[in-house]
Amino acid sequence: MRVIYVLTTGGTIEKIYSEQTGEVRNRDSKIDRYLGLLRLPDSDVRVVPLMNIDSLNMTDADRAAILQAVTGLLPEKAPILITHGTDTMVETGLYLQSALPKLEVPIVLTGAMAPLGFEGSDALQNLTESLIALRLLSPGIYIVSHNQVFPISSVRKDRALGRFVRAKEESS
Amino acid sequence: MRVIYVLTTGGTIEKIYSEQTGEVRNRDSKIDRYLGLLRLPDSDVRVVPLMNIDSLNMTDADRAAILQAVTGLLPEKAPILITHGTDTMVETGLYLQSALPKLEVPIVLTGAMAPLGFEGSDALQNLTESLIALRLLSPGIYIVSHNQVFPISSVRKDRALGRFVRAKEESS
Amino acid sequence: MRVIYVLTTGGTIEKIYSEQTGEVRNRDSKIDRYLGLLRLPDSDVRVVPLMNIDSLNMTDADRAAILQAVTGLLPEKAPILITHGTDTMVETGLYLQSALPKLEVPIVLTGAMAPLGFEGSDALQNLTESLIALRLLSPGIYIVSHNQVFPISSVRKDRALGRFVRAKEESS
Amino acid sequence: MRVIYVLTTGGTIEKIYSEQTGEVRNRDSKIDRYLGLLRLPDSDVRVVPLMNIDSLNMTDADRAAILQAVTGLLPEKAPILITHGTDTMVETGLYLQSALPKLEVPIVLTGAMAPLGFEGSDALQNLTESLIALRLLSPGIYIVSHNQVFPISSVRKDRALGRFVRAKEESS
Repeated sequence: MRVIYVLTTGGTIEKIYSEQTGEVRNRDSKIDRYLGLLRLPDSDVRVVPLMNIDSLNMTDADRAAILQAVTGLLPEKAPILITHGTDTMVETGLYLQSALPKLEVPIVLTGAMAPLGFEGSDALQNLTESLIALRLLSPGIYIVSHNQVFPISSVRKDRALGRFVRAKEESS
Repeated sequence: MRVIYVLTTGGTIEKIYSEQTGEVRNRDSKIDRYLGLLRLPDSDVRVVPLMNIDSLNMTDADRAAILQAVTGLLPEKAPILITHGTDTMVETGLYLQSALPKLEVPIVLTGAMAPLGFEGSDALQNLTESLIALRLLSPGIYIVSHNQVFPISSVRKDRALGRFVRAKEESS
Repeated sequence: MRVIYVLTTGGTIEKIYSEQTGEVRNRDSKIDRYLGLLRLPDSDVRVVPLMNIDSLNMTDADRAAILQAVTGLLPEKAPILITHGTDTMVETGLYLQSALPKLEVPIVLTGAMAPLGFEGSDALQNLTESLIALRLLSPGIYIVSHNQVFPISSVRKDRALGRFVRAKEESS
Repeated sequence: MRVIYVLTTGGTIEKIYSEQTGEVRNRDSKIDRYLGLLRLPDSDVRVVPLMNIDSLNMTDADRAAILQAVTGLLPEKAPILITHGTDTMVETGLYLQSALPKLEVPIVLTGAMAPLGFEGSDALQNLTESLIALRLLSPGIYIVSHNQVFPISSVRKDRALGRFVRAKEESS
């Protein structure tokens, strides 16, 4: 069995609709339930919940906690998936890259524009893509989303398009 | 073919997740798409969008508009379903009842605690139940939700339970 | 809490796709899982698996077993839902009616043209409708399906239409 | 926009439940509808229906037709996805490899153990994985399924496990 770590930090991908308030918020992690819908026969997927926050509220201390968790796992030489809000995903990825210049495994960050389980959501697609990309990518830090793979050094979120684009690409 | 009117006023049942803002709001009607998932072989369901608002924001003028629409349809002697936010559904139902004391058809109000298409939503259940209840109910005004049928004069929303209860029933 | 009995006999509604053989067959009951998707706050739904067969293979002994189960439950004066294959559902209903002329509760038979969990299936719709119809129907035996309610004495399956119709209604 | 060709040949992935016969068969292609659920913002996916058959019934002439279609597309230098029944997918892949020793693009074969739209199906997972694998793989012929990527020369279907395994791997 091949070990994969999934570090969860919150973001839209895990947001939940509150019937009491009518808001969509980060409360409980639900990624295990959706990973259970996928067939991953030779993988041992280990979900590590780190925090459950909107990435617009992510602080330097939060990013340091993510780095610490990643650093602790690197000796296992297992690929790492980090679920994260899209708004500051690039910032977290660049922070990890500057602190971890010599990786032996790929690290993929992913998230979603609409939460897991909402009609038309991209969340399960992005999870599925990230897990197989971790099979094929060379060591480094990437964002995987919407059938695209971006090295962290050349990607930005295009808010108008609602997706990631190459860092130089213009919004249409 | 048996005609049924579906008057839509908004409420949680038709709320949509905005990928731009992360909010859940009334914007477009989506009830047609979900009615299309049901098999209604001898029915001619006519959807009439009246408004698309959170029922907490519903004004006297909005209720007068609903009454006017219902009154205009009564000569057709077709059952009427009104989709509505749950927070003031009872108020609208009582308003209709006071204005329409002698009905020849059943009128059902329904809504949802979670929008159509969200995981775990009660919305399609409530629509399905309301459409068959309109087959079986005698003339009058009712709320149908969560496998229950309430005459409008003896129902209230229990916010803690997240559902309707008989007017005298205590919250557990 | 209001008790409802659900007697399961198999039929398409509970068929399962076999990945080994590519066939769709009755093997395990899955109705509990789908009942769990519905909000039934004041009901105590008791599922009683009787058999799990295609109704084309149902024998006189099987029908006698259904009758025996129903007869044993009648003293509880709780409504009864029977899930059943559509091909001989009318036959079983008429058999129960001839043996049980004086009922104090409604008994509804339902089934599906496509199994629970298959895209476009009518199964969850039919379950939802049946459970609320049992609230509203007077004592007697009925088939509930596709937003329609048929007394057992005036219904037949129209195989070309893929649904139930009134006994005198012509196939279009 | 990046062009991807999807050649469809049938197999379980596109099987449809027949309400008339209760069988699961290849009749109409439904892959377009499911591709429409995925966000593929910079891709121009061109679906080319070649045949719609159970791969156990695939003849030499059918394989020649697939080869001819692939050969016709190779000058476009676009990656190619072939949907195919799992039972003879390896045979078709090896046939293509022997005829096309020098590829400039990756060709992925995929399929499913349960049809698109059936509860618990692996079909959309396999489609999603195949489309992103085509981004990352070097030229050659592969099977992608269940989060795994197999070069065509070292894969076999394990019928007991219900999945593909490396050619030397034993069934558990």
